[in-house]
Formats: sequence, C-alpha cells, structure tokens
Amino acid sequence: MSTPALPVPQLLALDWGTSSLRAFLMCDGKVTETRSSAHGIQHLPLPGVPGYEKAFAAIAGDWVKQWPNLPIVACGMVGSAQGWKEAPYVRCPADIKTLAGQSIAVPSGLGPDILIAPGVLFDEPDELPDVMRGEEIQIAGALLMNPQWAVRSCMLLPGTHSKWAQIENGRIVRYATYLTGELFAVLSEHSILGRLMPAESEGKKETDAAAFELGLATARNSAPGDFTHQIFGTRTLGLTGRVPPAGLADYLSGLLIGHELVSGMAGAGDLASVPLVMIGAPALCERYAQSLKVFGKTADAVLDNTAPVGLWNLALAAGLVCAN
Amino acid sequence: MSTPALPVPQLLALDWGTSSLRAFLMCDGKVTETRSSAHGIQHLPLPGVPGYEKAFAAIAGDWVKQWPNLPIVACGMVGSAQGWKEAPYVRCPADIKTLAGQSIAVPSGLGPDILIAPGVLFDEPDELPDVMRGEEIQIAGALLMNPQWAVRSCMLLPGTHSKWAQIENGRIVRYATYLTGELFAVLSEHSILGRLMPAESEGKKETDAAAFELGLATARNSAPGDFTHQIFGTRTLGLTGRVPPAGLADYLSGLLIGHELVSGMAGAGDLASVPLVMIGAPALCERYAQSLKVFGKTADAVLDNTAPVGLWNLALAAGLVCAN
Repeated sequence: MSTPALPVPQLLALDWGTSSLRAFLMCDGKVTETRSSAHGIQHLPLPGVPGYEKAFAAIAGDWVKQWPNLPIVACGMVGSAQGWKEAPYVRCPADIKTLAGQSIAVPSGLGPDILIAPGVLFDEPDELPDVMRGEEIQIAGALLMNPQWAVRSCMLLPGTHSKWAQIENGRIVRYATYLTGELFAVLSEHSILGRLMPAESEGKKETDAAAFELGLATARNSAPGDFTHQIFGTRTLGLTGRVPPAGLADYLSGLLIGHELVSGMAGAGDLASVPLVMIGAPALCERYAQSLKVFGKTADAVLDNTAPVGLWNLALAAGLVCAN
Repeated sequence: MSTPALPVPQLLALDWGTSSLRAFLMCDGKVTETRSSAHGIQHLPLPGVPGYEKAFAAIAGDWVKQWPNLPIVACGMVGSAQGWKEAPYVRCPADIKTLAGQSIAVPSGLGPDILIAPGVLFDEPDELPDVMRGEEIQIAGALLMNPQWAVRSCMLLPGTHSKWAQIENGRIVRYATYLTGELFAVLSEHSILGRLMPAESEGKKETDAAAFELGLATARNSAPGDFTHQIFGTRTLGLTGRVPPAGLADYLSGLLIGHELVSGMAGAGDLASVPLVMIGAPALCERYAQSLKVFGKTADAVLDNTAPVGLWNLALAAGLVCAN
C-alpha cells in the first residue's frame, strides 16, 4: 500500500471562522490538500486556548510533525477578541503589506507559531463605522489572482453579512456591510413575515422567479425609508393571493438583495469603468449575478473561495514564502 | 352599601385583539365603564366558538343580563379569518358607512348578536397591497372627534405595525404599514445587533438621546437601499465605542423610526397643509413626536386610545345608536 507523493508543501493556511475550521497545504500559491472540521471558534472541543490547541492539533498535527518548519498563517474570527489571540483591526486604507505587518503570532502548541491576520476597520468621522474579519483575506486572494483588479475594482462578497469593498492601488479604501442574509433568516424565522411561508420541512423548492423579480423591482423603485414598509409585502402579497405561499420567501429574498444592490451599486461609483468582482459560494453568487443583470450590470468575474490564495498572499507579504 | 348609579348605557363596545379584550359601556359617545381581560383571540379559555362565547360571557355577561337590548359592536382581530367570524376586508377608499354596511353579525351566545367590523384592504395594481384590522376603527374615532380631520388629514398610528393613513372626505383613501416595532423587537432579540446591548434584566434605563438622534439623522440622510447597511451600525458603533452599550438600542430605535418618518412623510403629501394626527400609547407617541420635531414637523394632535369612540361611530353609522 502506497499513497501518491504530495509536492512538498510551502505553507499551512487556516481559514478559521465562527462555525468551521479549514486547513490547506499550499505549494506555489496552489492548494495541494484540504481538510475541514466543525471546530469553529464557537464550537471548540475545550474552552479557551487549550481548545484552540486541541482543534489545531486534530486538523494539522500530523502535518506539523512531518514538516516542522512549515510556516503557518490564519485568518478569520480566530483573530477576534473572542478568538485565540486578538489581532486588532487595521484601519482603511489597508493593503496586504499592512495586514501582514499587523498580523500577530500565537504559539501553536506544537512548536511553530501561527501568524494570525487582523481584520479591517472603516472608521471615519460623520460616517457609520464598519468591520470585516476574514473577507479582507478573500479580497487579497482575488487581488493576487488578477493584479488589474488591484488598480481599481469593486469586490462584492454576498452572504450573511454581505460586503461591498472599493479597491484602489491594492488597498481596501472603503467598504460597507449589508445584513442581507441575516435579515432573511431572522425575518423568516422570527417575524410575522414567515407565517404564510410553507414550513421548511416541506422540502426545498424551485425559486419562484416572478416573486423574486417582484422583490427586486420593488427594491429598485424604492424611495428612502421604504424598506420597513416593503417587507410587509411578504405578508400582504400572500394574504391577497398575488404571490403563492411558496413564493413569499423569494419575494423577501429579492427585496433584500435588491436593496443591497441599489445601495451597494450607488456606493461603488461608476461601475461601467470599474470591474465588479464577486466572491462567494457559487449558488449564492449565481442568485446575485441574476439580480445584477436585472439592474443592468454583469459581474466581471465570479470567484469561489479565495481565502487560501489570500492567505498565500499574506504569507508572501510577511516573507514566509517566496513568489515564483 | 350602595354603588353609585351609572347612566343607562346605549352601547356595549368591544375592542378584541390578538392578546387582549377590552369592553366598554358607552353613553352619548362617552365611555362610562371599562373592563379588560387577557382573552385575546390567541388566548381564549377554550378553542373556537365556545371560547369566544365564554370570554364574552366572562367580561360582559352581567351587562347583557341587565340590559338585554343593548346593541353590541366589536372591532379587531375578532373579525379576522382566525377570529370568531370573519368580516372580510373592505377595500379603500373606505368610510365609516362602508365599514358599518360590511360588518357581520355573530350570535353572542347570550341572546343578542354582536356586530363585528371588517378590516380595510389596500390593493391597487402595481402597488404593494396592505391590510389593517382595528386601526380603521381608531381612525373612525378620531374623525368623529374632529370632523375637520375628515376633510383631509394624515393619521399616524405608531406601534408594532405602524400605519400611516391618508384621509379624504371621511374616507381612508390609502395607507401604508411599517414594521417598525416588530423589527426592533426581532432584531434586538434574534440578530447579531442585540449582542452588545445590555440584558433587559439590567433594568429599564433612560433613553440615550444622542444615540437616538444619531439613528434619526442616519435615517434622514439615507439613500435608497441603505437600511440594511445602517442597521449594522447598531453593532459597529458599539465595537468602536462611539455609542455606549446602553445606547445601542436607542440608535436602532431612532434609525427605525427615522426610516418610517422619511417614507411616511413623503407619502403624506404636503404636511404643511394637511393635519397630522397621531393615535397611540402616550409614551410611544411622545417618542414619535420628538422624532417628528427633528424632522421639522409638529403633530397637530396626539390622541390616546380612540377605539371606543370609533366603535361608537360604527354604531352610529349602523343605526344602533343615535347622535345627540
């Protein structure tokens, strides 16, 4: 019995979020092996530092034993105030050199240190502050994949807390978070708006395209302040039979994504001349791509998980690996 | 032992909502006696019709026995599809004569019938539909109190589901619901936005006026679609220390009320020439009145519960009582 020979790895990269931990062996900027565990920072096997050490040893202990000099980098909530060790936020504008310079080291418990990336803070007078932690590394991955985007681009990371980030000269100069995904979940589960929706136990259904597009159109035609009225349509469109029960969640989804697009596109400047790059899970990106099309915009690129490449970029900037 | 003589009542009026039941004896348009019970339609002593009969007998059985010919009217969720008997929605434009004409009778179980008012439906092509049930009677009360408002006015009923109704020639011609109160509760209890707020067990605190006004100002300066970004400020203003934990709920409250005002005032037309009448619980109306002032508007009147007078107006229109 023999296993195929792996290339000798140059980096061990960890994407360590709230609900999951993913570990990547990387060589020449590419992932050669991937593992994942459920040991997100809210699901550690033990509380506190011993929990982090145990989770790390479980997912990567044999790798560290085999390659004790392999550099290790991490991003995500592992560097938050509730994480293994806090890597305080870096302020906008932030580039990968700043992120690498402000990363903090924590002993892995197995010998080598782990370099944890900081998050990025937007905090200007007379504007709402904003925070990200993890997305900055995904953005750094996209910027490494296509340096043209580093000149100027808009990065859209849809999700529970969607981010719209403006990139100039390799730096995240400003960004905004939209609670699109979380609002959808909370309103469906805990408000009157979910009452007429079929139970989830009735199984996953096809999207009701007409209901979804009604939500998008309603958002697109909205005036300031209309949102908290328009969401009530999730109920009244059902009560009046104008949208069938199975389509009510699609109306709400379209309305939420539509509001995000209206505001996000306005904040992105001239999207005719600035590339729009989407990063995220393929099914969600597809839903956003369709929505963008209704708003007259095509995404210039759609990327799946760019965190490993972003962690490679961080390691490059920290001098832990070398460019080819 | 003698009890003071009550005036002979002319009407038994019921305000029967989801969570409570209130009964009023009325004479010459005024309440002479009030009772309340927890037997809202979701908290009946028995399921179905027997539960309604039992709840009614418990709160008003002795009154019916004493005055068996007293007319009885009711409003609220008791007339919904989940109520005692459904009184189908009347479409806008709706006046009190239409409401009275479309009310439906249900046997009280004690001899006389109860006349239940319908709700009001707004359902026009190319607009979101909207529903109210109960508020139309509160509005009818205000219109009876000051016939000038019937000519033309805007009625604002703040609450869990705030209503902004436009009145012309005694009719509700259009209105919009805002989920202000429900969103505040759901976001505080079930989303990430509540995490930094002090626990409710830490006791009721004073309003943080600066945080509340920051929410109002943020809403007032918003562009379409900004809402789902701005609510994230409830977290980031806390993380950055720009608003203390005890003020975060006030920021969210100001933001929600502010968005409602921006949209509601835009929909109310020229509020310089149209009276704005607020109906609701005094503390909530006070919060809205302060907010309106920040937006440059003073409410022309603030009324506490107008449901009894509205039910009197319904009884007048139904010919069950006579005007003086």
